[in-house]
Amino acid sequence: MLKKEAITDWFRELQEGICSALEEEDGKGKFHEDQWQRMEGGGGRSRVMTDGRVIEKGGVNFSAVHGPLPQNIAEALKLSASSFYATGVSIVIHPHNPLMPIIHMNVRYFETFSKDSDNDDTWWFGGGIDLTPHYVNKEDAAWFHRQLREVCDRHHPDYYHRFKTWADDYFYIAHRQETRGIGGIFFDRLGKSEGTKEKLFEFVKEVGLSFAPIYTHFMQRNAHLEFSQAHKNWQMMRRSRYVEFNLVWDKGTKFGLQTNGRIESILMSMPPKAVWEYNHQPEQGTSEAETLSLLRKGINWLE
Amino acid sequence: MLKKEAITDWFRELQEGICSALEEEDGKGKFHEDQWQRMEGGGGRSRVMTDGRVIEKGGVNFSAVHGPLPQNIAEALKLSASSFYATGVSIVIHPHNPLMPIIHMNVRYFETFSKDSDNDDTWWFGGGIDLTPHYVNKEDAAWFHRQLREVCDRHHPDYYHRFKTWADDYFYIAHRQETRGIGGIFFDRLGKSEGTKEKLFEFVKEVGLSFAPIYTHFMQRNAHLEFSQAHKNWQMMRRSRYVEFNLVWDKGTKFGLQTNGRIESILMSMPPKAVWEYNHQPEQGTSEAETLSLLRKGINWLE
Repeated sequence: MLKKEAITDWFRELQEGICSALEEEDGKGKFHEDQWQRMEGGGGRSRVMTDGRVIEKGGVNFSAVHGPLPQNIAEALKLSASSFYATGVSIVIHPHNPLMPIIHMNVRYFETFSKDSDNDDTWWFGGGIDLTPHYVNKEDAAWFHRQLREVCDRHHPDYYHRFKTWADDYFYIAHRQETRGIGGIFFDRLGKSEGTKEKLFEFVKEVGLSFAPIYTHFMQRNAHLEFSQAHKNWQMMRRSRYVEFNLVWDKGTKFGLQTNGRIESILMSMPPKAVWEYNHQPEQGTSEAETLSLLRKGINWLE
Repeated sequence: MLKKEAITDWFRELQEGICSALEEEDGKGKFHEDQWQRMEGGGGRSRVMTDGRVIEKGGVNFSAVHGPLPQNIAEALKLSASSFYATGVSIVIHPHNPLMPIIHMNVRYFETFSKDSDNDDTWWFGGGIDLTPHYVNKEDAAWFHRQLREVCDRHHPDYYHRFKTWADDYFYIAHRQETRGIGGIFFDRLGKSEGTKEKLFEFVKEVGLSFAPIYTHFMQRNAHLEFSQAHKNWQMMRRSRYVEFNLVWDKGTKFGLQTNGRIESILMSMPPKAVWEYNHQPEQGTSEAETLSLLRKGINWLE
């Protein structure tokens, strides 16, 4: 039986591997590490890079926290257990170049148990990868979704479609009626009814391992593209939408704030700099307007 | 009997008066007006100034909205009525100069009624003024709180203490364990049990009228102060805390997003530009560290 310790160890190593790959590709930036402990149990290892060659600000966080299950979370998740264990890796990368996309990845494992039992009551995996280009490039989008479909297809014929739709629904800025970006895959509560723990972990591992090749591809392909001040201004405005999504809608951020997580690690997803311009509307026919028109659910990027 | 129409008209004129006073003092910036309508009923008049002499971005909004009371709000407010009417003026000003404070003011009137009755079931006033200096200056803070105490004292001997404490509790960034600024006064659901509608409106009017003299005082006193790039960097970081409060904790923002309010009017409170620096800690003994030490509840600024 796959134990939580083994999953935890694997996630810790995933963080190592991703940091190395990003540092190597960036060539200048180094990750700075902070280890932290959570009063109620567990802790984490946050790694943040600032002012790299390609990466303006990037966080690659590992955590493994446990303790009594907070009441409000038990209610929200409809769980009766008294304790929980959660481990995962979370990543958000904000690049300098506005023609490079922002990327987010998360893989996580969650388990609950009750005092009077040695066995875990409930367990599940969650996670996904999604891309937020400041400017949507359809070729890049198709390439990105193709990588995810290949990962998914190796595990279940329905996964890509199901988790792509889930990402569209999840990464949605309802008050703007915009998706956060071009989506990707998102899944949650993949547990017993979906397959064995071993089998699901194989899928989650592959999602985790796909991150470095995907983002270094964009670092190689887009980081040297020339851009103007207008591109930079638009990037700053798109970043403020990223802030709005994460602070208003993201359940992961809420979970972190409610479980007394380490604030600086949770909010490493915030962009280094963002701009709110009142009622900005891009002119028709511009690439900014085109990007806006593509920030909606249900687009088949593979076509 | 004071009618909602009279309150609405007074608020609309308050917006006029405040905009004129701010434009006059700024000397360069002009408010740009957008009128908007809400699908379910009512609408508003948003006025935003950008790139004035003193004001970098400022919004002075009037609105009067009505319609069916959304289910989630009825539950949150523990109301059984089927319809609501809400009118008010909301202001947030972000100045250029980091030695100038950000200010927020709100005055509002809320009423609910049921279809089978001509009379309002429930009504109340809410509002307040609070100040968010990027650098806390104790003299300025004392002057500010003195103005509010004088307004309060003319109406009830308990108001200042009660509403000052309420502001400390309300404008609290729980995940940072910091107050948003030096507080001010905040009050909500001042209804029948507190006095007649006429009497309470007199108080709310005086709060509204105190805004222009208070902020133009700071415009005169602080806008010309010399500042450095370090001051500016700190201002950008304090602004990101302002964003965090408004998007994560502010009930007014949530109410707006839930009642399908006009997004650009609700989010005019966002700063023009903000910075998130991972795990920034000011050095001991600096004025930045002193400011942080003063962002807590329960300080008596009048002493």
